[in-house]
Amino acid sequence: MRARYNKVDIDTLKENKRFLNSKEALQEVLKKKINNNTKLYIEIGMGKGDFLFNKAKNDKDNIYIGIELCLPVLALAIKKISRYEENENIYLDNLYVMSFDALEICDYLGNFKVDTIYLNFSDPWPKKRHEKRRLTNEKFLEKYKQVMKDNAKIEFKTDNRELFEYSLVSIQNFGFKFLEVYLDLHKADVENVVTEYEEKFSKYGPIYKLVVTK
Amino acid sequence: MRARYNKVDIDTLKENKRFLNSKEALQEVLKKKINNNTKLYIEIGMGKGDFLFNKAKNDKDNIYIGIELCLPVLALAIKKISRYEENENIYLDNLYVMSFDALEICDYLGNFKVDTIYLNFSDPWPKKRHEKRRLTNEKFLEKYKQVMKDNAKIEFKTDNRELFEYSLVSIQNFGFKFLEVYLDLHKADVENVVTEYEEKFSKYGPIYKLVVTK
Repeated sequence: MRARYNKVDIDTLKENKRFLNSKEALQEVLKKKINNNTKLYIEIGMGKGDFLFNKAKNDKDNIYIGIELCLPVLALAIKKISRYEENENIYLDNLYVMSFDALEICDYLGNFKVDTIYLNFSDPWPKKRHEKRRLTNEKFLEKYKQVMKDNAKIEFKTDNRELFEYSLVSIQNFGFKFLEVYLDLHKADVENVVTEYEEKFSKYGPIYKLVVTK
Repeated sequence: MRARYNKVDIDTLKENKRFLNSKEALQEVLKKKINNNTKLYIEIGMGKGDFLFNKAKNDKDNIYIGIELCLPVLALAIKKISRYEENENIYLDNLYVMSFDALEICDYLGNFKVDTIYLNFSDPWPKKRHEKRRLTNEKFLEKYKQVMKDNAKIEFKTDNRELFEYSLVSIQNFGFKFLEVYLDLHKADVENVVTEYEEKFSKYGPIYKLVVTK
């Protein structure tokens, strides 16, 4: 996804109270909000945030953290989420966003562990030389594993056939256990929170989904 | 695949010299034909035999065994292969066919081990209660594992989405290592020997392929 850089938006983002700008800020929130029963969900590469907003809105007892490396995209997401909230006259105090490289996730989370990691329509990085940047490359899987609770899941969706082929092999070779595979998710009889990208691109071909655990 | 029962064809099949009617007959052939370098390939559910014929014709130094539980189908395959051979004025002495339940494969092969097991467009057995009949069910995988050389492969192709979804999970959970996954084989830049079923059905949707090893 490309978005035009807008300095004003980014300044606004940084002042937004759901934007956490350091691991200390994140851990402070988690310390305050998480008790024995609270679940922690993370979306890596949250894009414009529709998925995260819908999940958080329908599950207010648990915490949702969206990570997006690209600040202008995150700025757009924050604006969009705020607009949704205004329209619905709500404020979701269980939804936070951050901007850091997912390889640093262990450091950011400290002792906190996650229940589900969502990877939705991640950048396919189609060139072989960029393989290590794919969010399902073993370098990333190793980090995810470290922050996952024992029964935690990774839920991965994409419309990119080559990325899904790559990911099936990469995730199997890494050793995660497959729970569910969908090769045409929209034809399957399962609950599905649609992302903005998914809505747009599902008419061009199937949506693939893989759910795994440790 | 359905084929009408024809007693004459089946009698002809049983007299055909490439039909091996017992494990003793199989092992005798293998003893005679296999030396240190000879490879052994098995197709389980060979259908009408186009795939096996093309493989065997282009690789005369190695042995190809086709297994088909349904005798009338096997009778058709033998007729078809014989016709191809007549047309091309050849005889493939590296191609044999048999009819037995793949669960008995260990017993049939004795000490002989295979290099590749081919599963092409296996019966999807879509009903949950028939799950154990699917050729990628763990009961079968356990048997395949026992007859595979250390670096042997299973190559599995299907056009049935649900069967492929099931098989990805089943084969991963069983512990085989994924080597290659194709979610639209005919769009991939790889060699592919097309089966008669594949030729017919590839226009209705993608062909899926999975290659695994122990």
